Amino acid sequence: MSQEFSVVGKRLPRADAVERATGTAKFAGDIKLPEMLIGKVLRSPYPHAKILKIDKSKAEKLPGVEAVISLEDIEPRKQFTVSFADLPLSPRGPMPERADQYVLTDKARFIGDPVAAVAAINESVAQEAIELIEVEYEPLPAVFDPIEAMKSGAPRIHERAERNIALHAVCPTSQGDMEKGFQEADLIVEDTYHTTKQAHCQLESATTVASFDASGRLTIWSQCQMPHPARRSLAHIFDIPVGDIRLITPHVGGSFGGRNSLCPEIIATALTLKVGKPVKLEHTKDEDFRVCDTRTPFIFKAKLGFKKDGTLIAIEIKATTQAGGYLSRSTTCVNVFLGFSIGSYRCPNKLAETDLVYTNTTPSGAFRGMGHESAMWGIEQLLDRAAQRLGIDPLEIRLKNMKKVGEPSYVGLPIQSTALDECIQIGAEKAGWQKKRATKGQGRKRQGTGMAILMHTSGSQPFYLEHCSVYIKVNEDGTANLVIHPGDAGTGSPGSLAQIAAEELGLLLEDVHIIYGDTDVTLFDLGSVACRTIYVTGNAVLRAARQAKQLLLERAAEELGVSPDELEARERRIYIKAAPEKGITIAEVAHKAIYNFKQEGLAILGKSTFEPTTSSPPTQAVFAEVEVDTESGKLKVLKMVIVHDIGRAINPITVEGQIEGGLSQGIGYALTENPAINMDSGEMITDSFETYKFPSTLDMPEEELTIIERPDPVGPFGAKGVGETGYIAVAPAIANAIYNAVGIQLTELPITPEKILKALAEKSNP
Amino acid sequence: MSQEFSVVGKRLPRADAVERATGTAKFAGDIKLPEMLIGKVLRSPYPHAKILKIDKSKAEKLPGVEAVISLEDIEPRKQFTVSFADLPLSPRGPMPERADQYVLTDKARFIGDPVAAVAAINESVAQEAIELIEVEYEPLPAVFDPIEAMKSGAPRIHERAERNIALHAVCPTSQGDMEKGFQEADLIVEDTYHTTKQAHCQLESATTVASFDASGRLTIWSQCQMPHPARRSLAHIFDIPVGDIRLITPHVGGSFGGRNSLCPEIIATALTLKVGKPVKLEHTKDEDFRVCDTRTPFIFKAKLGFKKDGTLIAIEIKATTQAGGYLSRSTTCVNVFLGFSIGSYRCPNKLAETDLVYTNTTPSGAFRGMGHESAMWGIEQLLDRAAQRLGIDPLEIRLKNMKKVGEPSYVGLPIQSTALDECIQIGAEKAGWQKKRATKGQGRKRQGTGMAILMHTSGSQPFYLEHCSVYIKVNEDGTANLVIHPGDAGTGSPGSLAQIAAEELGLLLEDVHIIYGDTDVTLFDLGSVACRTIYVTGNAVLRAARQAKQLLLERAAEELGVSPDELEARERRIYIKAAPEKGITIAEVAHKAIYNFKQEGLAILGKSTFEPTTSSPPTQAVFAEVEVDTESGKLKVLKMVIVHDIGRAINPITVEGQIEGGLSQGIGYALTENPAINMDSGEMITDSFETYKFPSTLDMPEEELTIIERPDPVGPFGAKGVGETGYIAVAPAIANAIYNAVGIQLTELPITPEKILKALAEKSNP
Repeated sequence: MSQEFSVVGKRLPRADAVERATGTAKFAGDIKLPEMLIGKVLRSPYPHAKILKIDKSKAEKLPGVEAVISLEDIEPRKQFTVSFADLPLSPRGPMPERADQYVLTDKARFIGDPVAAVAAINESVAQEAIELIEVEYEPLPAVFDPIEAMKSGAPRIHERAERNIALHAVCPTSQGDMEKGFQEADLIVEDTYHTTKQAHCQLESATTVASFDASGRLTIWSQCQMPHPARRSLAHIFDIPVGDIRLITPHVGGSFGGRNSLCPEIIATALTLKVGKPVKLEHTKDEDFRVCDTRTPFIFKAKLGFKKDGTLIAIEIKATTQAGGYLSRSTTCVNVFLGFSIGSYRCPNKLAETDLVYTNTTPSGAFRGMGHESAMWGIEQLLDRAAQRLGIDPLEIRLKNMKKVGEPSYVGLPIQSTALDECIQIGAEKAGWQKKRATKGQGRKRQGTGMAILMHTSGSQPFYLEHCSVYIKVNEDGTANLVIHPGDAGTGSPGSLAQIAAEELGLLLEDVHIIYGDTDVTLFDLGSVACRTIYVTGNAVLRAARQAKQLLLERAAEELGVSPDELEARERRIYIKAAPEKGITIAEVAHKAIYNFKQEGLAILGKSTFEPTTSSPPTQAVFAEVEVDTESGKLKVLKMVIVHDIGRAINPITVEGQIEGGLSQGIGYALTENPAINMDSGEMITDSFETYKFPSTLDMPEEELTIIERPDPVGPFGAKGVGETGYIAVAPAIANAIYNAVGIQLTELPITPEKILKALAEKSNP
Repeated sequence: MSQEFSVVGKRLPRADAVERATGTAKFAGDIKLPEMLIGKVLRSPYPHAKILKIDKSKAEKLPGVEAVISLEDIEPRKQFTVSFADLPLSPRGPMPERADQYVLTDKARFIGDPVAAVAAINESVAQEAIELIEVEYEPLPAVFDPIEAMKSGAPRIHERAERNIALHAVCPTSQGDMEKGFQEADLIVEDTYHTTKQAHCQLESATTVASFDASGRLTIWSQCQMPHPARRSLAHIFDIPVGDIRLITPHVGGSFGGRNSLCPEIIATALTLKVGKPVKLEHTKDEDFRVCDTRTPFIFKAKLGFKKDGTLIAIEIKATTQAGGYLSRSTTCVNVFLGFSIGSYRCPNKLAETDLVYTNTTPSGAFRGMGHESAMWGIEQLLDRAAQRLGIDPLEIRLKNMKKVGEPSYVGLPIQSTALDECIQIGAEKAGWQKKRATKGQGRKRQGTGMAILMHTSGSQPFYLEHCSVYIKVNEDGTANLVIHPGDAGTGSPGSLAQIAAEELGLLLEDVHIIYGDTDVTLFDLGSVACRTIYVTGNAVLRAARQAKQLLLERAAEELGVSPDELEARERRIYIKAAPEKGITIAEVAHKAIYNFKQEGLAILGKSTFEPTTSSPPTQAVFAEVEVDTESGKLKVLKMVIVHDIGRAINPITVEGQIEGGLSQGIGYALTENPAINMDSGEMITDSFETYKFPSTLDMPEEELTIIERPDPVGPFGAKGVGETGYIAVAPAIANAIYNAVGIQLTELPITPEKILKALAEKSNP
């Protein structure tokens, strides 16, 4: 593999490995500016309450306090949504009806809703000031369950959302005739599935430093995964020209979709605009849990109709999506969920729809998978149930119904490449499918093997403004500065982008300096979402590198007395293809370009914009081997076999890291993670790493990972996305293994021993 | 004037006016980084001494000290010159023979020569550590006067410089036959002139923050006026790939040529490389005086031959240039001095040569004028002496001999434009020349009027690598980020460059954000030297703006259904030239370029490299009116009339500021400034703003300033340089006014009452 490449495909440490390992990488929390104040937020203790009066006078008088603000201090007093849906980021245009929150609220809609904020000289003064703010609340009846929330008579959370339904969405790829489809089906399987408000659990808390200075410009250090839209959104919220905002992305300690929306950026900006000094706003861990977006949870009824031979001919999804107190990015998850729920397999008759419902809980938003994982939680289990009923191997039913090259993807774009067949076949071999499926054990502990597949997306086409621009500047020593700003979700993608640039320029990885994270000098990039960075930004990088290389080749051609197309660049050298011993170093060419007295001085800069019309799907087959203790209900995941079709692994270490990280988060999603909310008070009980159980390394099963490289025609060097993919199919594969082991299917996540025991009991006594 | 422009020619506040006025502008001294250490330098107390032994052990043991370094700790132990002459910055190629110093010295060559350095947790620990370093010196005989230094038997300062002569230079534009020229002359005037080691007196002390971190990259906050060459030079000195160095230019508190060379950057870098933590090295004011380059002083014999009608036919310059302990940038000043000394007027026979001589004094370097001011100090006085002897008006002798368009400039490039004739005529009117020359007063106080001219340069062509590249990024709100890095000499030129960009793009000045000062994202620019910024960088800005505008016009043309060449951009709007009411805002075009769902998304970036083949001269006539107290020798400058040919004043306020600042520095040069060196010990006595007298506002004479705009064909919108020009002709104009008042000519700067009294006495008793 990758014999033809010098840099691409190499197992290289991530670009920031040394900084991270030595603790010198600078995160937002490390930023200290002269005169910087500390911000703190007063949050509602009620899940639902009118705010009658705010008395800030005592807080204002506290020495060291420089600002105390509530909604009345915010100008303009504009509603917005943190998910940018009120901006023209979607081909549907701006959706002002989705703007449902203020910088600080006039009515609390969940516990933690920001009511007031202070900026003070240090944290203890800020905290004391928060405690001195007197708020008169009128508590209102609250509702925490989306089904309850839709009932007539339920407390109304937002005036404009009747029965708390913010919107009703029908999947635009719905087609066919559902009635006829199900009539013609030989088998119908259906069930209702529940997924959870999983927390992201980034090790780093949400933190923003905002600085509005005498120059009239606002600088924001933000962890947002979508820096350019974030800048545009802050401009919108505060009526500041976007060019007056400089958004800088520091190192981040994990994102997982949780930095997809704006969060502390907004109040930090309000505070710095008020005081004209820098303000740092750093969440405590319990603020992260209570206030930052959670995964968007779904309750959905899935109904699938099959012909006897296993052909899927009808699929219908009726879902309820829970938004929490505000819409945040749950609106996007609705689209993704609906699309994948009926679009993962070929099917002539299909319909998916959902209500998106407010509840008095923490807002739901983006989380690795964006709803794809919820859809597969149901679909992949129903597929196994159908296979069982029809006497077909689960592999066969998937091979039969899965989509092939040229067929429409989950959003209807033509599929450019898929190695899903190979993933299934290799996975089955590695997992010992035939043998393991038959070996279920005896007595108390039963083994089982199951699998699930996924066909994801590279990029957000056609939901979003899917383009980006980058440039590459060649230094006089022949190294290159790659200037990019896809945000940093903590995935290590900048290093892979540098590998793409190095490969194309004919340099080594250490020759490419990654300059990113400053909107003042970077060009528009949608952001680190939807597994798009390598596929979209990577393509722009490839093209910009090609442009810069062309300039180098032209210069070298003059030196070597040949034409540029006779030349090749590789490993720091440009040489004549037909006579590789004749060449010149890139360093020499680059140096002569600048240190040039022949009136040919030139600063070499390559620039490119890339906008795909496709979203080539990375695909994956996941095989789980489990052991169920039928007496205690305890589940042991013995082994996971993952086969992932990546098109091309630009850096196999990074790809593996993403898949392994996804597996870990998928195991948590499947087995242990579920923010516990007191359904009487609305209080989140699991508000720390002590009370919220996400997997540690000790919880990880044995794992066997295979990467399939069947180059995609669009991706740079054939690469497709990775990141969300590691996570999506883990839970259904485990569920299907349990089904294989003990014949039960669980519909509600997470899979706890209690639920297993209950299902086993129901199976024994139906 | 400038009716046709929206932004160019407008009197606008400088870009950083508010930040500077409110004290929020960040200078190098304001930078605080986590773990930052404070650096201090142990400097030689001897003007000339061998260093026998350095015992660092006590200093190293002091708690809080993290590094103590001397030459033995420096790797590589390489000689270099702070003026970049050892780099390929000149068409003559690198001149390694000019590399004459180490990071820390093994032999002290002036009082203040750095011997060792420390990095410690704070300033007091650092200072204590410095005092704990034990150095065993062997004092050597020293020499402070360049004439003495050239005598055989004088102490040898550098091994390779025999008789301390570092180099002998002959001006390359020398031509003709000197003997014949002087034979044919009807009048020969000659004298020997002395200029001084004037100090720059920047309000901000020299300061560097250097940070070498775990990523392996070195970041330097440097005041250097030539950031890109400075980066290249640091790479050379420390054998670091240039791409691994990021040089950031913060706000600076004055340069005046003094930040032309590297200074604290070098030791700060050595310290951070040693400790791997950031180090701040901030000079005390006396370190600035003792250690930073001074003006390069000249002693020169000038001999001019004229025909009866005033035609100059022969000119010969024999000079001695004082380098101080190291060459620094005195080598460049030699070239500039020689060029202007024989190239300011048309002359068929000319020769200029000099020895550049080491002495045991502070190194000489760049200072506003770079030697031009020294040349004019003699030439302009001798011209008046000749005019007097030949009975010709000083204006006439200048109008007769001055160069015209098409003639070779002081370096032999064709002159593109000159309004010197107009400067002289208008100046004469404003100064009341005819009347004032005749009115010398009676008795003790005598009045006089004199004048001097100059024909300077815009840019350093052909001495240096005279090119630069810039780019402009258009934001989605229609504003533009101008990404430049000509360094910041504190002149306000970035604002003028933004005016050029705004004018061309059809924006207002506040729409152009100046992003400068970071080599990671800026393209090569020679630097803020030789009045080149507006002329060279400005031209690159104009072209980059034109490219960005073209992209905007193409987009607008599509919207308006016309072709791009039918459109004009002005005041934030693109409109049809033939129907100005039909148009579209630039903001709308820019927004649609990014927020575009028609597969036409584009980040608008304009980029240009500019390399002139010319150096269009700004010209100036200065008229001084003085009063000499013949009893006390006291001189009063009553009025200065300045007429300056700028081609086009991009921002008249900035142009006036430069000319007024130059006048102030010129008054200091003429009358009061002269670093006093104890000629026995070599000690600099004037080492603070208390003991060194530079003019305050109260010392400024009445001033009348006229700007002539006769657009130059090369400069952007016709502009030529300004900056050095305000300073150069002030001293000779004052000297000529004294000559007119009391008939004495002074040859040694500064013009003190003592010297006037002495000259008056000599005149009475020849």
